[in-house]
Amino acid sequence: MTRKLWGGRFPKKNTASVEEFTSSISFDQRLAKYDILGSIAHAKMLGRQKIIPAQEAKLLVKGLKTLLKDAEENKIKFSPQAEDIHSEIQNLLYKRIGETAYKLHTARSRNDQVALDVKLYLKEELDEIITLITQLQKSVLQFAEDSFGIIVPGYTHLQRAQCVLLTHHLLAYIEALQRDKERIIQAKERLDTLPLGSLALAGTGLPIDREMLRKELKFKKITENSIDSVADRDFILEVLADLSIMAMHFSRIAEDLILWASQEFAFLDIDFAFCTGSSIMPHKKNPDVLELIRGSSAKVFGDFSTLWALLKGLPYAYNRDLQLDKPALFDSIDTIKQNLKIFKELFLNLSIKEAVLKEKLKDEALFSVDIMEYLIKKGIPYPQAHNIVGRMVNDCLDKGKKIADLSQEELKQYSAKLSLEIKDFLNARASVKLKTSLGATSALQVKRQIKKWRFRLKD
Amino acid sequence: MTRKLWGGRFPKKNTASVEEFTSSISFDQRLAKYDILGSIAHAKMLGRQKIIPAQEAKLLVKGLKTLLKDAEENKIKFSPQAEDIHSEIQNLLYKRIGETAYKLHTARSRNDQVALDVKLYLKEELDEIITLITQLQKSVLQFAEDSFGIIVPGYTHLQRAQCVLLTHHLLAYIEALQRDKERIIQAKERLDTLPLGSLALAGTGLPIDREMLRKELKFKKITENSIDSVADRDFILEVLADLSIMAMHFSRIAEDLILWASQEFAFLDIDFAFCTGSSIMPHKKNPDVLELIRGSSAKVFGDFSTLWALLKGLPYAYNRDLQLDKPALFDSIDTIKQNLKIFKELFLNLSIKEAVLKEKLKDEALFSVDIMEYLIKKGIPYPQAHNIVGRMVNDCLDKGKKIADLSQEELKQYSAKLSLEIKDFLNARASVKLKTSLGATSALQVKRQIKKWRFRLKD
Amino acid sequence: MTRKLWGGRFPKKNTASVEEFTSSISFDQRLAKYDILGSIAHAKMLGRQKIIPAQEAKLLVKGLKTLLKDAEENKIKFSPQAEDIHSEIQNLLYKRIGETAYKLHTARSRNDQVALDVKLYLKEELDEIITLITQLQKSVLQFAEDSFGIIVPGYTHLQRAQCVLLTHHLLAYIEALQRDKERIIQAKERLDTLPLGSLALAGTGLPIDREMLRKELKFKKITENSIDSVADRDFILEVLADLSIMAMHFSRIAEDLILWASQEFAFLDIDFAFCTGSSIMPHKKNPDVLELIRGSSAKVFGDFSTLWALLKGLPYAYNRDLQLDKPALFDSIDTIKQNLKIFKELFLNLSIKEAVLKEKLKDEALFSVDIMEYLIKKGIPYPQAHNIVGRMVNDCLDKGKKIADLSQEELKQYSAKLSLEIKDFLNARASVKLKTSLGATSALQVKRQIKKWRFRLKD
Amino acid sequence: MTRKLWGGRFPKKNTASVEEFTSSISFDQRLAKYDILGSIAHAKMLGRQKIIPAQEAKLLVKGLKTLLKDAEENKIKFSPQAEDIHSEIQNLLYKRIGETAYKLHTARSRNDQVALDVKLYLKEELDEIITLITQLQKSVLQFAEDSFGIIVPGYTHLQRAQCVLLTHHLLAYIEALQRDKERIIQAKERLDTLPLGSLALAGTGLPIDREMLRKELKFKKITENSIDSVADRDFILEVLADLSIMAMHFSRIAEDLILWASQEFAFLDIDFAFCTGSSIMPHKKNPDVLELIRGSSAKVFGDFSTLWALLKGLPYAYNRDLQLDKPALFDSIDTIKQNLKIFKELFLNLSIKEAVLKEKLKDEALFSVDIMEYLIKKGIPYPQAHNIVGRMVNDCLDKGKKIADLSQEELKQYSAKLSLEIKDFLNARASVKLKTSLGATSALQVKRQIKKWRFRLKD
Repeated sequence: MTRKLWGGRFPKKNTASVEEFTSSISFDQRLAKYDILGSIAHAKMLGRQKIIPAQEAKLLVKGLKTLLKDAEENKIKFSPQAEDIHSEIQNLLYKRIGETAYKLHTARSRNDQVALDVKLYLKEELDEIITLITQLQKSVLQFAEDSFGIIVPGYTHLQRAQCVLLTHHLLAYIEALQRDKERIIQAKERLDTLPLGSLALAGTGLPIDREMLRKELKFKKITENSIDSVADRDFILEVLADLSIMAMHFSRIAEDLILWASQEFAFLDIDFAFCTGSSIMPHKKNPDVLELIRGSSAKVFGDFSTLWALLKGLPYAYNRDLQLDKPALFDSIDTIKQNLKIFKELFLNLSIKEAVLKEKLKDEALFSVDIMEYLIKKGIPYPQAHNIVGRMVNDCLDKGKKIADLSQEELKQYSAKLSLEIKDFLNARASVKLKTSLGATSALQVKRQIKKWRFRLKD
Repeated sequence: MTRKLWGGRFPKKNTASVEEFTSSISFDQRLAKYDILGSIAHAKMLGRQKIIPAQEAKLLVKGLKTLLKDAEENKIKFSPQAEDIHSEIQNLLYKRIGETAYKLHTARSRNDQVALDVKLYLKEELDEIITLITQLQKSVLQFAEDSFGIIVPGYTHLQRAQCVLLTHHLLAYIEALQRDKERIIQAKERLDTLPLGSLALAGTGLPIDREMLRKELKFKKITENSIDSVADRDFILEVLADLSIMAMHFSRIAEDLILWASQEFAFLDIDFAFCTGSSIMPHKKNPDVLELIRGSSAKVFGDFSTLWALLKGLPYAYNRDLQLDKPALFDSIDTIKQNLKIFKELFLNLSIKEAVLKEKLKDEALFSVDIMEYLIKKGIPYPQAHNIVGRMVNDCLDKGKKIADLSQEELKQYSAKLSLEIKDFLNARASVKLKTSLGATSALQVKRQIKKWRFRLKD
Repeated sequence: MTRKLWGGRFPKKNTASVEEFTSSISFDQRLAKYDILGSIAHAKMLGRQKIIPAQEAKLLVKGLKTLLKDAEENKIKFSPQAEDIHSEIQNLLYKRIGETAYKLHTARSRNDQVALDVKLYLKEELDEIITLITQLQKSVLQFAEDSFGIIVPGYTHLQRAQCVLLTHHLLAYIEALQRDKERIIQAKERLDTLPLGSLALAGTGLPIDREMLRKELKFKKITENSIDSVADRDFILEVLADLSIMAMHFSRIAEDLILWASQEFAFLDIDFAFCTGSSIMPHKKNPDVLELIRGSSAKVFGDFSTLWALLKGLPYAYNRDLQLDKPALFDSIDTIKQNLKIFKELFLNLSIKEAVLKEKLKDEALFSVDIMEYLIKKGIPYPQAHNIVGRMVNDCLDKGKKIADLSQEELKQYSAKLSLEIKDFLNARASVKLKTSLGATSALQVKRQIKKWRFRLKD
Repeated sequence: MTRKLWGGRFPKKNTASVEEFTSSISFDQRLAKYDILGSIAHAKMLGRQKIIPAQEAKLLVKGLKTLLKDAEENKIKFSPQAEDIHSEIQNLLYKRIGETAYKLHTARSRNDQVALDVKLYLKEELDEIITLITQLQKSVLQFAEDSFGIIVPGYTHLQRAQCVLLTHHLLAYIEALQRDKERIIQAKERLDTLPLGSLALAGTGLPIDREMLRKELKFKKITENSIDSVADRDFILEVLADLSIMAMHFSRIAEDLILWASQEFAFLDIDFAFCTGSSIMPHKKNPDVLELIRGSSAKVFGDFSTLWALLKGLPYAYNRDLQLDKPALFDSIDTIKQNLKIFKELFLNLSIKEAVLKEKLKDEALFSVDIMEYLIKKGIPYPQAHNIVGRMVNDCLDKGKKIADLSQEELKQYSAKLSLEIKDFLNARASVKLKTSLGATSALQVKRQIKKWRFRLKD
């Protein structure tokens, strides 16, 4: 039997169905480590403040430390009958140190305790996520540098638009990931405030020392309003929002790579080690990892949706609904971490199909802007230049001709300013080279970006 | 080591990280029973159609039946290294009957197999949910009948509006649940189509007999387009939509009861067996079950959101993203079933606080419409009647008077048609009795509803 | 100045900011027609039941009919200061027939009135949507029939899988749309219940006749619980769920077509009339219509999310939050109707690029299942057959060879059962022809489907 | 007829239905001001860089300035036939200055232009929102200070928990709003990067000067990757996430006030100017403003959901789906601004019902923690103290007794440490005074908070 942290007033026990329905131990057990860490600090403080005898505080700390060790080594078996991780830790402590265990909960409520646990958990997890983002960025950068010089058709509306350096395209991902990282750094900073000492909602009359708790638990600040401390979950919601935005980026990057790995785009090959086959089609080699990254982005979004809807319209302060913030949070943290890790590996298992790309880059439509800008430089106003090239492209498509094959005469029919000179840049390399504006796709501009990221991502 | 259903073409194995990332065994193992049932039917069909030797078919069926028994008794230990439940079942079968096991996958793809498994699962689960809804309705009906005669203030905008029979209010829940049930019945009917035999996407050239499969597996119909069969998941999305709508109803009913159980409303008491206490506040008795019902509605909505977003923009036919439909589905099915069960019990553990209610019903504002309708019956047009009563209520509030204490003279100041007669219905019982329109809250009308539901919900 | 339907009790007016904030006229004016229709029925009933004088009822009906005519001709200018459409209609009626106008609201509340208006609106809109779905299905069927015989690579995981008839692929859309239509038909049926006569929440003591109202307004049934009638919005939520599911299908169909219209897939051309160009790239021809269909699916989903979250946790009965159900509903109805109309047109403006397709169909990987099934028919068990073909495909890819070029000898190295005979079906037409199972992609099976749809979709 | 920015290649026009379907002028016209501002800077730059003749640049700037003036005075009538605001501005400019107008689009694409417009729009709107949040905080602070000294029951699980200063409860809102504000400040900072000069996706070969554009348009930075600049919308998604989180807070604050304004809680009165009445119930005074705030939070969440789902899985770079980011964004910006404004006013129109509160504060359960902490201070360990008080509370409830009426003897039956002394703090004032921990609800602690906010919110 597991002992409850309440019940004095209760003339009867909960039914088994209620116990099962309200228990959170199946998911909040993963807060064990943080619950114990918080409890160690709390016990020390209780002792120093003489709220409990110093001797008992020591006993608590000692017992908790053995629990911590076991928790870190995954040696604890949590009782499925436990109400929650907070009760369970006390029950486990009781088994080790006897009745004193229950004094740990002096001057504390599960309301401030759980807020503490989740913040400790998040500070650690977000740090890891920040590191993993940097590693993914480095992996992308590695691939981007390794493939420097490769040109691909860039797309808008999934229609071929203009030639771009593949490296340039990949660097766009790093920019997006950088914003994702910044958001998480700021979210972490914002939640770095100690809630412990807020108790149920009103604070306490016992002589606790929150500043000591803050130092012990390495928080930057102390929450300044006890009701806000226990009632709000915007710090979790913000994390889920940030992870959702990052997941959205993952889904788009995955989509790019899935397209590129198809037989139709055929820009690149994914190593067999990162593909799976079909139980029926012997020839299949599927980009499952990418599909699962794309698909699991929806889970992170769903978790945000769950938490938003859960919080909507709840009166202050704590309501039991809040218990359900954790499955959503844990699912998203796990999903994002897995995705960051596998994505990082995947970028090192791609190989470019240069021959295929070369073939595709022969599509002269990719140079239409170059011809137009040539005309503009020659003094033809933009609207006419646009029109001239539009007609030229269309005629060539209609007649199955190539612009490169047009004679000087034929060119002049479209504009007196056109000459055979344009053939000099009717190729991908020349086209890319022309794009010299700041942030554009010319090799020079792209090298600037590489340099920046090398510097910013270095350890 | 677990054997893959593919790999002939693969020169190397997946990395451990890829295997772990792509594995679904942790969640799809709960489809084991349905996977085996589908396989038994498939094996029989393969044998009868001579696609595999009759003898081998028998061996498959025999082996599968032993697996089925073990699965139903929860005796199977699934390998965490397995790729998915489909591979795992074959591997387990191999351990029992040897190489023949792998012939089971003849003329089948995991694409049609998983669609089959989920449909079999849903047919069973939805049947249970339909039964549980009826049980919840009966439980509400029981409480509604037991509390017949009790009057409560009805609210709009959470402001006291008019008196209603508590029974009438409770019967509104039964109406909503009935529509929830109908939706699920129709969703179940719609998905009752056998997908097996669609294979990867194109069907097969082997002489399978889908009609035999249909009969064996008790489907109403056979899917008529092999691509649609394996590509779509609208049948799951529809179920999640229907469960979301039901969960929305749960959240509203829970909100009503949470309000009513507060010290401020104090309409009713929830039995101790259905409440929990506080680790810090010894006096607390919290309606946690209701809060968790309200909160978990957000999970069901979040699951719908996940699946919708997951499906959005996926090209036909099967994509690996679809693997992730299952955690969302299972979570919602479980949540809804738990909620239905606990809710049903809870309605039998409520007790009305009649004395408190009596006090509240003295609020004369609750009778303002009765006075207005009295005036209308006396020939005063509605706009004037509304105005008269509005002024009367306001004056009484301003002066701290009761309408019941107004003299004939004072009444006449508002309207010549007013007389002391109105005092006859300045009480809750009279007020409720007046509401005789179809579907209104008078005892007669409410009894009609009870009779209807007694009939419709009887076994 | 616009007159309120309430205010007798109110000692002061709302501030201008409150009036603006609470007004719904900017969006609910589109319910004008239904509000008037409901009012005509209500006025007739009030007259026949002698709740108001017959003469006044006639005046009301007459006035309302002139308003109806103007509303249908879009001649009414609604005051932006109006509180809502219900007040506004009465104010407009007042301008035409004087004080009697305000008697219209006798034995009615805006709570049952707005539920009525939305149901009348939905019955009409859903009927139109049902018709539009059928028209879209017909349009797809037309394209499917016109392109009968065309073979395309079918994809799973966006990797080439097996050959399928384009017609077969298109018919998968029609299946999905059929389920979408069924859901809407059932939702419409379910909401076809008259709420008028429920008043604020409790019904009335005035002698109304709801059966007469039902007949006048052509509802199938009458709501049987007055609280449920005014408190719930599941009928709107269900419609939004159904439209979301349909929008999900749209997004997937659009994705297919966007892919197929890309230069890489190049299966088909979209007519210039259905594409737009680029302000900078003269050669561009973008599938904007399809992208907007795909994108706008997210709006419909967002509308469902809005309404679900809005309803969550609202206590019974009416709360003002419900006012905001309408912008979400209207947006989705409009979006879906527009999408249905433009999608229907678009399917008639596609042209297949047969030459490109022919080239793609030379990819022998598309026939791997055919070789495998050939081997199975020859008595090789499936697992070995899968393996044999897997190795063969891989070797050919490695060595840049074609299976069709392998000699009898080379074939035998993979399996003694292989012979040059297999070359007979190493082509798309033969491959498709082999798929004879029920619902498969062979011409015979596909013709069955066409026949079915011709019959089911005929007027 | 409106002139397109493209079309040279197009042999035919769009159908009217396509034009209507793809047009965004109905909603993006509100970007007019920002489009013109961006164009003025662009024209100046084109002139200085000699990409167009200086004379023409001047003409463009002059024409644009007249348009800007008209736009700011809402004098422009946008053609409903226009494709989008970008085309429309050029068409309007053409009417004023002739053909030169179309040269404005030199070295620019609508892809970078629209990203610019939205960023300019957001920088302005977010600044206003930041100001409005501060104003709301001040309004809450005003109310909090004015009601200093008022004590209310604090709730957890919507059950009475402990006494708190109303001021303390209100200050919790200010804390939450502060985090909301910080998030928006950081989002604004992050998006303060000039995208103009990225063109379609690849940059340009024309000699543009992005640094000049940055200075003219007052951006902090320049985007450094042209593909990222035009492809991503995370800056909008982040804003919607931040607004959603704030809206969640609004919904909770509104819920508190709706509860408090109910007859059951009856903590406060909302001024008539901020309530509305009922068309049927003459006595009603409904908190509609609060309900609409609560309800509209769901719209903001729905807008986030729309945009997330819209972006999911889109390949890089620009896709037309992105056009639909604007209705969602505008709706949320408008909703949040309206809510901030009306909420600020509302807090100045509340009045506390002190008499009612006094009555409620007599509930001795509110002091159970005080008795428990008294016992702990007397040396009774927490678990026993909790138990003692639990039994005492229960007995009193059972026997209908008050703790304050218990004799010394009766008290001793629960614990020898209990004495009549406890009666000194069996009142709300004493109870609150005891809560002296940092951030707790004692007057001293609350004054500290007030001082902090006075300082932080001062202009």
